[in-house]
Amino acid sequence: MKNYLEHDPWCIVENGFHRDYNEITESVMSLGNGRMGQRGNFEEKFSGKTLQGNYVAGVYYPDKTRVGWWKNGYPEYFAKVLNAANWIGIDIDIEYETLDLNTCELRDFRRVLNMKEGYLERSFVAVLKSGKLLQVASKRFCSIVDDEAGAIRYAIKPLNFDAKITVTPYVDGDIRNRDANYDEKFWDEVRKETGYGEAFIELRTRKTGFHVVTGMCVEIEQDGSRIDYQSQPIKYEKYVANRITLDCQQGQETVIYKYAVNLSSLNYDSDRIMVDAHEYIRRITRKGFDKMLFEQKLAWADKWKVNDIAIDGDVAAQQGIRFNIFQLNQTYTGEDERLNIGPKGFTGEKYGGSTYWDTEAYCLPFYLATADQKVARNLLLYRYRQLGKAIENAQKLGFKAGAALYPMVTMNGEECHNEWEITFEEIHRNGAIAYAIYDYVRYTGDEQYLVDHGLEVLIAISRFWSQRVNWSEAKQQYVMLGVTGPNEYENNVNNNWYTNYIAAWTLRYTLESIQKVKQLDAAKFSALADRIHFREKEMETAGHIINNIYLPYDEERQVFLQQEGFLDKELMPVSDIPKGQRPLNQNWSWDRILRSCFIKQADVLQGLYFFEDEFDTETLRRNYAFYEPMTVHESSLSPCVHSVQASKLGMKEKAYEMYLRTARLDLDDYNNDTEDGCHITSMAGTWLAVVKGFGGLRVETNQLVLNPYCPDNWTSLSFKIRFRGALIQVMTTQENVTVQNFSTEPITLRVLGQSLTVAAGSRETVAVQVEALPVGSETPED
Amino acid sequence: MKNYLEHDPWCIVENGFHRDYNEITESVMSLGNGRMGQRGNFEEKFSGKTLQGNYVAGVYYPDKTRVGWWKNGYPEYFAKVLNAANWIGIDIDIEYETLDLNTCELRDFRRVLNMKEGYLERSFVAVLKSGKLLQVASKRFCSIVDDEAGAIRYAIKPLNFDAKITVTPYVDGDIRNRDANYDEKFWDEVRKETGYGEAFIELRTRKTGFHVVTGMCVEIEQDGSRIDYQSQPIKYEKYVANRITLDCQQGQETVIYKYAVNLSSLNYDSDRIMVDAHEYIRRITRKGFDKMLFEQKLAWADKWKVNDIAIDGDVAAQQGIRFNIFQLNQTYTGEDERLNIGPKGFTGEKYGGSTYWDTEAYCLPFYLATADQKVARNLLLYRYRQLGKAIENAQKLGFKAGAALYPMVTMNGEECHNEWEITFEEIHRNGAIAYAIYDYVRYTGDEQYLVDHGLEVLIAISRFWSQRVNWSEAKQQYVMLGVTGPNEYENNVNNNWYTNYIAAWTLRYTLESIQKVKQLDAAKFSALADRIHFREKEMETAGHIINNIYLPYDEERQVFLQQEGFLDKELMPVSDIPKGQRPLNQNWSWDRILRSCFIKQADVLQGLYFFEDEFDTETLRRNYAFYEPMTVHESSLSPCVHSVQASKLGMKEKAYEMYLRTARLDLDDYNNDTEDGCHITSMAGTWLAVVKGFGGLRVETNQLVLNPYCPDNWTSLSFKIRFRGALIQVMTTQENVTVQNFSTEPITLRVLGQSLTVAAGSRETVAVQVEALPVGSETPED
Repeated sequence: MKNYLEHDPWCIVENGFHRDYNEITESVMSLGNGRMGQRGNFEEKFSGKTLQGNYVAGVYYPDKTRVGWWKNGYPEYFAKVLNAANWIGIDIDIEYETLDLNTCELRDFRRVLNMKEGYLERSFVAVLKSGKLLQVASKRFCSIVDDEAGAIRYAIKPLNFDAKITVTPYVDGDIRNRDANYDEKFWDEVRKETGYGEAFIELRTRKTGFHVVTGMCVEIEQDGSRIDYQSQPIKYEKYVANRITLDCQQGQETVIYKYAVNLSSLNYDSDRIMVDAHEYIRRITRKGFDKMLFEQKLAWADKWKVNDIAIDGDVAAQQGIRFNIFQLNQTYTGEDERLNIGPKGFTGEKYGGSTYWDTEAYCLPFYLATADQKVARNLLLYRYRQLGKAIENAQKLGFKAGAALYPMVTMNGEECHNEWEITFEEIHRNGAIAYAIYDYVRYTGDEQYLVDHGLEVLIAISRFWSQRVNWSEAKQQYVMLGVTGPNEYENNVNNNWYTNYIAAWTLRYTLESIQKVKQLDAAKFSALADRIHFREKEMETAGHIINNIYLPYDEERQVFLQQEGFLDKELMPVSDIPKGQRPLNQNWSWDRILRSCFIKQADVLQGLYFFEDEFDTETLRRNYAFYEPMTVHESSLSPCVHSVQASKLGMKEKAYEMYLRTARLDLDDYNNDTEDGCHITSMAGTWLAVVKGFGGLRVETNQLVLNPYCPDNWTSLSFKIRFRGALIQVMTTQENVTVQNFSTEPITLRVLGQSLTVAAGSRETVAVQVEALPVGSETPED
Repeated sequence: MKNYLEHDPWCIVENGFHRDYNEITESVMSLGNGRMGQRGNFEEKFSGKTLQGNYVAGVYYPDKTRVGWWKNGYPEYFAKVLNAANWIGIDIDIEYETLDLNTCELRDFRRVLNMKEGYLERSFVAVLKSGKLLQVASKRFCSIVDDEAGAIRYAIKPLNFDAKITVTPYVDGDIRNRDANYDEKFWDEVRKETGYGEAFIELRTRKTGFHVVTGMCVEIEQDGSRIDYQSQPIKYEKYVANRITLDCQQGQETVIYKYAVNLSSLNYDSDRIMVDAHEYIRRITRKGFDKMLFEQKLAWADKWKVNDIAIDGDVAAQQGIRFNIFQLNQTYTGEDERLNIGPKGFTGEKYGGSTYWDTEAYCLPFYLATADQKVARNLLLYRYRQLGKAIENAQKLGFKAGAALYPMVTMNGEECHNEWEITFEEIHRNGAIAYAIYDYVRYTGDEQYLVDHGLEVLIAISRFWSQRVNWSEAKQQYVMLGVTGPNEYENNVNNNWYTNYIAAWTLRYTLESIQKVKQLDAAKFSALADRIHFREKEMETAGHIINNIYLPYDEERQVFLQQEGFLDKELMPVSDIPKGQRPLNQNWSWDRILRSCFIKQADVLQGLYFFEDEFDTETLRRNYAFYEPMTVHESSLSPCVHSVQASKLGMKEKAYEMYLRTARLDLDDYNNDTEDGCHITSMAGTWLAVVKGFGGLRVETNQLVLNPYCPDNWTSLSFKIRFRGALIQVMTTQENVTVQNFSTEPITLRVLGQSLTVAAGSRETVAVQVEALPVGSETPED
């Protein structure tokens, strides 16, 4: 765990340059606007440790799969997030010296990510080898108003010399992906153009043929006024630049404004994308840096207005939660149903693919509660549009008759992963996609979605489950053999409780949804049934499976068994693992991990979290007491579920401990891997730990239910949520809970067990009574 | 299945060139002598489909591991069998035309592998584009007398022209491994030398630093007399040659003799290996081709004298079994305990590593019965010498106190495989290594081996098993979780019957062996116990495990269960698999294979085969009837075990069917993969099917036991075996069994249930009585 970033409620602050941690800082200080994103790299040359990264949403490359041993059914290609042309670069040469922060001495270095207003700024004084002192101050952002553009203000001031300074703003498309399987380059040059202070390059991805134009326009100010300058255009392979030589006087500030665009053929006709890029850049250049930044601030203020979480009394926790909310908003805006939430967002290129079950299981509730309903709907539509591919995917694995298996990892609907125990067997993801439909309808009340799209997906997933189980003569029940559950520290197990449960639940919800859709729009149901050859017999089969699914259970302990045979393991708490052997996946061989009882990520507990209405609190308490001590949380998606449940069980200390495991995961580089990028999807888990955990937010029978409490060391916690057109703020102190209604309609909700109606624009307060919180026993600490 | 090679009792004959099958023919017609081996490639240029291959025993390259997803514990490198310099090449240029069998018309093409005498010959008339007719006849062999040398007689005769013909014998070290993970080259050049009609190249393997000198010497005859010729030396990178231009008259035969050596630094000091190569080649050149070939014939006659199997009445079967015996003898001679039996021998480079459990489980009995005792002993010593590495390997996986896990695949004792479900979990291989010691001692009576080496290995393996099981509170028995049994169509299962059984058996045999060694040499036992810190407590633990190991069993069917949960599968016979879906591994995704009931390779039956003395025939019959119909035999090592057991159960048709599955596996390219090389280790399985199956050979209490029968469509079957200094021949017809004793001592054995003493140099005959054969019911045919 590192602790070099300063605590601040609204900013991430690096004070003094931490050279060895630079790649971590670059990840953390990434900027994005849902369409493009850029790691916190330096504008000027840097010969030290850095991972350059500019990413354009939806643009990917199908990298040839690398495996040790091929298994039939593996995908040939693996969609990789693509590192695109570098648009931020500005080389600075002072006579014979190049500004390179790796080779010069630095004074007063400061890099700040301003989350409130959505920009990154940096300032320092470079001491060159020649003794020259150059002051630099840069500020940049990816505009969320003009969301294919970024802008940079780069100011230099010679402190102790006069000199000709050569400034070379450039666009460099000759980049490589660090994560490429065979070290291939993924881009071909199509064309390049340079003009006065302008340069454009059009690149095309190999194989997928996406065109991306990255262009720039440069303006220069001295003494506060825009100046004319001599610009020498430069063209190398996949590289365009303007070399500009300026007379700079001691103490005089020269400001370079660099405007850049990244247009992709996803949104522009590739025949005229270069023309469009010219127009786009002219437009933003006319608008100018200051106006763009002003609009950026306003846009971010709008976002924070509806999804800020404020914590009083704990700056580190405050910074952590805001950082998570900020990055989630940078990654996905919900504007475009073709996009999704990659595990690293725009902060790194590792893993590839853009969509995991994380989206449905962890991210959806965040967007449901903090964004317009259409954002969550777009996340569902993304899967709806890929249904055909999911059916093809299932066919490849031997399923038929319209059964769908969504990929483990995907970009365009095709499977992007190649470990048999995951790709073929971690099929519970299919359940999460069904669950997301349920979750969306429950939160929004939008039953029409079932009619228009949801039911078709549900039937296809249910068909998969119906075919995937088999009747066991020995058990006289349905079993599901050879799966990997959410706990990936077990592979190829039989009868994973979670998977069996969510399979049966999907069948049940599908049957209910069929009835619902028949009621709402019988004609549409008939049309759908005809189109997908749905037969009533399928409902019979589903009914039989629902009633006869095998769910492993331990009568003695009265807990669900993660899978068959779990009790044959040597059961021991995490605290018994000898020191120095964690994380297990870096210290133990895989077989040892598999046969141990240790759990990577909530599995039975994940099921009890999703389906909490179907189990009483005592059942949760018993299972929590059994599984929590064996859970190592080596997935960043695990602690949030435990935190929510600990809150529910009244285990406030455990809930807070689990919250801390995620909230500052990247800021403190908890897992030593933030240099690869931030854990974007698990950031939604942090939000869940606060809003569903500390806030106790639920939706029951079309009504918001809140059971908030304030962790012991916080003075107050307040969060905002949107619910069916309403916007409310919930503020919790140790003494009371206040609900503020910002809407134009009154809202009725249950708070701490009481029904409460809050008038439009008004607020109501409920006192916290100790009895109102469930009393729980803490589990043994590990 | 292909059937283009002619049936012949002693030869493999390709009549007419089968261009598309050339790589298959090259595999089948490989030559080897235990030290070096060469695929059946052409000497002259060939621009068509070919896999060039020359292999030098023990010389390998640690290729960088390629995986999709790294797991902790995987080896960084993977020892690959190395394709070495091409020593057979002779380019032929006739004025402006190059002889290339891919571009000219061919008449009377014939390629013959003579197994009786151990050489490969080829003859054809090439019709060049110019209309010139050139007759070619070549003959070559890898000498088993001078086992680092090969020799070629290459004769050309212009049939319708006079011309200057340029002959360029060469050594080309610029070769690549088709199976390289990252397409790297593995050899660096050290030096090269050329002389009159001579050329040498010394290459060094990257990383491992093996030196190999490949050298050649050329002599030329015209009109039956040796001639002097002008030789122009040629040196390119990693390539040396002599260009020789000859006046050739119509009808005149020109013969090129090419002598070659492959010396490696395993056997020569790398400082003077080049000098040694010169001396070696001078020696064999003086000896000359004809004498070398004569010696080759005598040496092969000696081999056949002790291990031929003769089948009357079925040429295809006769050819098949001789082919298998021939290839086994070419691959491993037992001269060098550092060597072992690679899965492809010297016939291809796929897979890498040289040692699998195949050696112990399938090959050892062949060498025990057909070669000097030291050959089998050397196979055991190979593992003994690698014990230290096996202990290290187990340590990497978390085991301690001298526990050993032998690698799944190895060259030098280090693990060479990287699939977690195999590398870490297919641990039954450890049992086979223990079993081989038992098998060797039983066959040879050499109990001293236990004292000197065997017991140390047994204790180390037993320590592994003792740590690998765990006590199940739920079952109140020892369980073994997360293994892959011999049936690799199941992965990561719990309580694989075979693995649990062989683990407990190893513990039992180790305890017996401790007693035995204490009796034989108490001082040596003490010394060993001290050295390896053996404590009596270990024996107690072992005893507790032996008595309390969980062995899954179905009470209803009275069969052992391949693993826990097997009865939850949908059980169905192989005959129910829809047409066109086999082999399963080319048609089904891995998860579907895993959750099906279909068995790649004998698993429970493998256990009943190893430990047949511990089960009655009815137990075997029930288990065979249960498992055989579900077995797809997609491992080439499977049918032999089924064949031996079918013979024992009196199911003659099934035994013959299973025999045919292996005997001509490569000759008929049954699995469409012979082009990669032959299935060397499964060839030993064919021998088992004949000698242990049809021959009913066993050793019981120091005595040979034979229960031979002759398959219905054969007239007679005869095989020779060595047993403790004796050499006998067993000849079976439909009517009687004759045992010929070639030894100088009488031998007493049991034949068809009768005790029989055969005097030295004499023979005895026993009549076959129908009752003498066990009567069995055939299993359902698939």
